[in-house]
Amino acid sequence: MEHLEKQERMEMWEKIQKALIDEQIDQFRAEFLELHPYDQAKIFEEQDGNIRVLIYSYLSPEEMAEVIEQVDRDLVDEFIIEMIPAFAAKILENMSTDDAVDILNELDKNKVASFLTIMDKKASDEIKALLHYEEKTAGSIMTTEFVVIDMEMTVKEAMQHLRKAAPEAETIYYIYVVNFYKKLVGVISLRDLIIAEGDWLIQEVMSERVVSVPVGEDQEDIAQMMRDYDFLALPVVDFQDHLLGIITVDDIMDVMEEEASDDYSKLAGISDVERSGDNALSSAKKRLPWLIILLFLGMLTASVIGRFEETLDKVAMLAVFIPLIAGMAGNTGTQALAVAVRSISTGEMRKKGNMAVIWQEAKTGLITGLSCGVIITLLIAFWYSDVFLGILVGISIMATLLVSTVSGAFIPLIMYRFNIDPAVASGPFITTLNDLTSIFIYFGLATIFMNFLI
Amino acid sequence: MEHLEKQERMEMWEKIQKALIDEQIDQFRAEFLELHPYDQAKIFEEQDGNIRVLIYSYLSPEEMAEVIEQVDRDLVDEFIIEMIPAFAAKILENMSTDDAVDILNELDKNKVASFLTIMDKKASDEIKALLHYEEKTAGSIMTTEFVVIDMEMTVKEAMQHLRKAAPEAETIYYIYVVNFYKKLVGVISLRDLIIAEGDWLIQEVMSERVVSVPVGEDQEDIAQMMRDYDFLALPVVDFQDHLLGIITVDDIMDVMEEEASDDYSKLAGISDVERSGDNALSSAKKRLPWLIILLFLGMLTASVIGRFEETLDKVAMLAVFIPLIAGMAGNTGTQALAVAVRSISTGEMRKKGNMAVIWQEAKTGLITGLSCGVIITLLIAFWYSDVFLGILVGISIMATLLVSTVSGAFIPLIMYRFNIDPAVASGPFITTLNDLTSIFIYFGLATIFMNFLI
Repeated sequence: MEHLEKQERMEMWEKIQKALIDEQIDQFRAEFLELHPYDQAKIFEEQDGNIRVLIYSYLSPEEMAEVIEQVDRDLVDEFIIEMIPAFAAKILENMSTDDAVDILNELDKNKVASFLTIMDKKASDEIKALLHYEEKTAGSIMTTEFVVIDMEMTVKEAMQHLRKAAPEAETIYYIYVVNFYKKLVGVISLRDLIIAEGDWLIQEVMSERVVSVPVGEDQEDIAQMMRDYDFLALPVVDFQDHLLGIITVDDIMDVMEEEASDDYSKLAGISDVERSGDNALSSAKKRLPWLIILLFLGMLTASVIGRFEETLDKVAMLAVFIPLIAGMAGNTGTQALAVAVRSISTGEMRKKGNMAVIWQEAKTGLITGLSCGVIITLLIAFWYSDVFLGILVGISIMATLLVSTVSGAFIPLIMYRFNIDPAVASGPFITTLNDLTSIFIYFGLATIFMNFLI
Repeated sequence: MEHLEKQERMEMWEKIQKALIDEQIDQFRAEFLELHPYDQAKIFEEQDGNIRVLIYSYLSPEEMAEVIEQVDRDLVDEFIIEMIPAFAAKILENMSTDDAVDILNELDKNKVASFLTIMDKKASDEIKALLHYEEKTAGSIMTTEFVVIDMEMTVKEAMQHLRKAAPEAETIYYIYVVNFYKKLVGVISLRDLIIAEGDWLIQEVMSERVVSVPVGEDQEDIAQMMRDYDFLALPVVDFQDHLLGIITVDDIMDVMEEEASDDYSKLAGISDVERSGDNALSSAKKRLPWLIILLFLGMLTASVIGRFEETLDKVAMLAVFIPLIAGMAGNTGTQALAVAVRSISTGEMRKKGNMAVIWQEAKTGLITGLSCGVIITLLIAFWYSDVFLGILVGISIMATLLVSTVSGAFIPLIMYRFNIDPAVASGPFITTLNDLTSIFIYFGLATIFMNFLI
């Protein structure tokens, strides 16, 4: 079976739909449940209210839980709210705790409280324990459904325990080992466990090199660690090494995607990632903060040019190259910024040291500046037959590219030093800042060498 | 044990180093091999040539293979080349096939050929089979070390086979099932296998819903599929459903990181992701292509302003607001571009339809344009005491923001339609294009309403 494209899903659905509407419950169930939960969810999302009500009545809460786990997080609150509350509560009970918590975080507090009241006590306790962890930390993405074994067990006892615990657990491929005080002391992979002899003790076969993360650890750091060490799961501990939960690789892939979207949006100057459910007004709200800040920065640039009004009055031709110079400054700045932000986030920056990075950017800026400066001097000298103007613009471009490249790398480094997320230094911000610098350089040089221009 | 920060690694190394230099081989081996291979690799990378030679002589090729697998791909060719070729060949033999192929792809062809000759035949055949797959396809990232069982086996036979195959296999958590013709017919997770009764047949307990990818599939699509379906591994098949290899989740995490870096760099206008090993010259080479294209586009903008020289001569004050207007145009364009590129790559675009996206961007542009236009009109009216100039700039901003927002979304959509990677439409390109439009709108309006300005 291939990954279903939208087209294929629709065709498949048309077949299944008939059974649904004709109330051939058994046939509908047989065909629908044969699909992967992800495809079930995509089909479910595309239905209107009447069909959804039918689906709720034909599937058990356990089956529906698998569908809801895969539904787009932006849509899920709507579905949960339209269900009969007792049915929704049963679904939440049957989901992985971490997914249930994710969904509840999208609902308003009264709704959450009422669901927690109807749910069975064990599930609601587990969910409550996770609800209070701060967003984007280990605590908020971990699940509490993991398999733990005692270091005194034999391999055979551990396997028996595992078989019993498997249906409930999020993963059974890493089994964490605790001592008498319930502290994390080791880990054994299922792979090593099935190779081991039945009468060996777990403490003899486990690895004591167990890597764990504290419950308050940032999710981006966890993603990097998991990628570096090629783990399928990571245990989460409190400050006394008690095992609180585990984070599995599928959740980490979602984190990676989320963080990448986030960095990307910030580079473009969007304050918050836009979602598929956003309308024009909420999109505009996310973009306006930067635009209004930039408007004021732009007024600053305007007032810099205003100061050179006298120069401009004498040589109106100077205005012609303003967008060219400002544009080049902005673009090189964004390039340098992007390189710096990436190398901070991948940890390469720490390897090299700050001064080495700045020095390398300066050399890069000098090379690009010299190249572009020479090209533009020649272009203007020939097209506009004005060698002095060409040299003026050329030198301005060179100086501008050097300064912009260095500042594009310097600003995120400074932010990182002061513990501000360097990705906040968005492209538009650097662009506008470099507009200002470049205009100052250009008109400053023009004013000094005015005699050659007129 | 926590993830080792650089500081901790250095301290740990100082202890181990003493044993190394004093030629206390056993002690060195005991302490070094106790570390996670990722930490071994990071320590190894930081050493100079003399120390590396000692390490080569104290570790076996099998042990060294684990280290080299984790070494930064930008540095690895240097290490492979400095080793005694027979030793290097043994290391490559002992690595996962996919990692060995990755490394060989970095070396020059003569070197690759000579390593393949010294290697044992089985390993070199496996590597050769993978070397010819196109970069960034399923074939290039898959491994051929997987466990496959026959559908006619019993659960007990399968477990015995698994125990034998486990040490060699990349993963044993998904076991793929083939029929008599070696075609992929099912999959069973180790989790389900250990719960099943020993005398059941595999074909009775396996899932026939096995999702596979064709060998030429793009790695980005595979990453998305793996994230959607929460798989730990995916089988790769030829067009007749023969199982060729598997792709594991740890490789996919590297792909996700690579693709995110790639999109990010492109948004900033860098033609190729810069690497930690790059010097200033190679950094400059990667940034110059865009800068030179933009230089020419900038000359175009300059000639547009040149056409309005008459207008400019009359009202030099107009030049003051050029960077403001061009800057705002560039920035909104980049915002719209980033949103469009993301929603194409996450597949949201297909859900909504192109016209709906453009229409929504037009409304967003209208809202941001109106807001910024009103603000700037008021600012200029008060600061510069010039109501008409304020209105002119305000209307220009409004029109510019509307047009730039729409074009920022429209251009990547068009590229996608013509099967060009929309991420190529970088921020700098959109910025410069929108500079041009905005200048045209601004000076066009200024020329028409000249009478009100002087």
